[in-house]
Amino acid sequence: MNFMSDIARRWLQGTQVCIGLDPFVDRLPTHFQLQPDGILAFNRAIIDATADIACCFKPQFAHFAAEQAEDQLKASIAYIKSHYPDIPVILDSKRGDIGSTAAMYAREAFEHYGADALTVNPYMGSDTVLPFAKYRDKGVILLCRTSNPSAAEFQNLLIDGEPLYIHVARRAQQHWNANGNIALVVGATAADEMARIRDVAPDLPFLVPGIGAQGGDLAATVRHGQTASGKGLMINASRSILYASNGSNFAEAARAEAIRLRDQIQAMSS
Amino acid sequence: MNFMSDIARRWLQGTQVCIGLDPFVDRLPTHFQLQPDGILAFNRAIIDATADIACCFKPQFAHFAAEQAEDQLKASIAYIKSHYPDIPVILDSKRGDIGSTAAMYAREAFEHYGADALTVNPYMGSDTVLPFAKYRDKGVILLCRTSNPSAAEFQNLLIDGEPLYIHVARRAQQHWNANGNIALVVGATAADEMARIRDVAPDLPFLVPGIGAQGGDLAATVRHGQTASGKGLMINASRSILYASNGSNFAEAARAEAIRLRDQIQAMSS
Repeated sequence: MNFMSDIARRWLQGTQVCIGLDPFVDRLPTHFQLQPDGILAFNRAIIDATADIACCFKPQFAHFAAEQAEDQLKASIAYIKSHYPDIPVILDSKRGDIGSTAAMYAREAFEHYGADALTVNPYMGSDTVLPFAKYRDKGVILLCRTSNPSAAEFQNLLIDGEPLYIHVARRAQQHWNANGNIALVVGATAADEMARIRDVAPDLPFLVPGIGAQGGDLAATVRHGQTASGKGLMINASRSILYASNGSNFAEAARAEAIRLRDQIQAMSS
Repeated sequence: MNFMSDIARRWLQGTQVCIGLDPFVDRLPTHFQLQPDGILAFNRAIIDATADIACCFKPQFAHFAAEQAEDQLKASIAYIKSHYPDIPVILDSKRGDIGSTAAMYAREAFEHYGADALTVNPYMGSDTVLPFAKYRDKGVILLCRTSNPSAAEFQNLLIDGEPLYIHVARRAQQHWNANGNIALVVGATAADEMARIRDVAPDLPFLVPGIGAQGGDLAATVRHGQTASGKGLMINASRSILYASNGSNFAEAARAEAIRLRDQIQAMSS
């Protein structure tokens, strides 16, 4: 498998939807809350219901770690790899550390958990990026302009007339992408920023959080975020899909919501 | 327990040495490499040999995760808490995410692993800091100016004439420290930066990596990093202590190295 070519193939197949696997235990349908390994069972049902709609899956590490359910995270990824080997998995763990330690986080994500890509925080610079990027077939998705309310506190500070997130994007494009495996996190809540980032990183894929619960603008995301070829996005939806219903029809409701989002994006795409 | 008051008590008892628990399996004495739970057994020996010298212990998450030894991380922290309840434990995991996810990482560090403090990456701003800081008795140690070679790529970029790390330090001091539980990571490899950070954050404790293998300057660290009262530092040493010997005398050698460092720091202190 190669993360970037697998994502590109899913784009050609007509989906730019990333399904975020963010289990909130108290929002799962009740029988999963009571069941041992209920998170895994819930994830399997969501995965089965949405795999043909997803361009990728993105389990969020903290949601499993908070529940001491790292084994169910690993098993969820293994389930995707064995049943839907064409669908890449991004481990959203936002790691970042000095070089020798980053190499250990690469082993955690790629070898232990079997992910195809992970998210990385660039604050510590090249040392923290390159130990991941040297895995040529794996994707490295750098926080650039995030979707949260306080993202601008540091990311939008101006350096030589340009915000910090532009400096991150330019370094990613020019210095870190020798293996063609770098992507950026760009929040849907920051449409203007997205357009500027697309200017300096014309070909890097964007992982886009912030649609749905966080109030991001889907139309602006598609307009400002896509590459010249009308692709380039992994638009994440988590809660709006996972918890579309908490009744016995949760999987059908999740599928319907994933289809709705996919079709909305495709209709907006150039 | 309260992290900050426990650290302050250890300073008064004459130590500013943080013992980093960074197990490299292939550097452990051979019998630990062959033994089930050998990392834990090694850590216990190091902890027993150095607890009276340490102002705190700092296990590095990635070293355990890369070996799929998270259970030995948890057991190592539990060992410290049960045998040396006065010595605080910093989980060095450099977490950082949107608010609801940061709250889950707080549960991971403080509830699941039982740490007294953790390291946090501030790139995403207040949202990522405050869910940790609201645990009043826990410490939140923010990456400010790190010790790695590429740290300056973003951290030293100038914003309104001041580097990014100063903006981080000032926000930590002025906006995030309402509970008095914020500290900063400031690398020993950046002595000039340390002096500037001490100016804007006169009372925040500094966790100082970069002594030893990374070539940081101990004398400059003590001179530029201490607070007006001649305290304020948690100077980390990992490899120089853990692997002082890989013979059967490894624990005695670790203890001797920890004492040497503690005494060196105290002799330099005002």
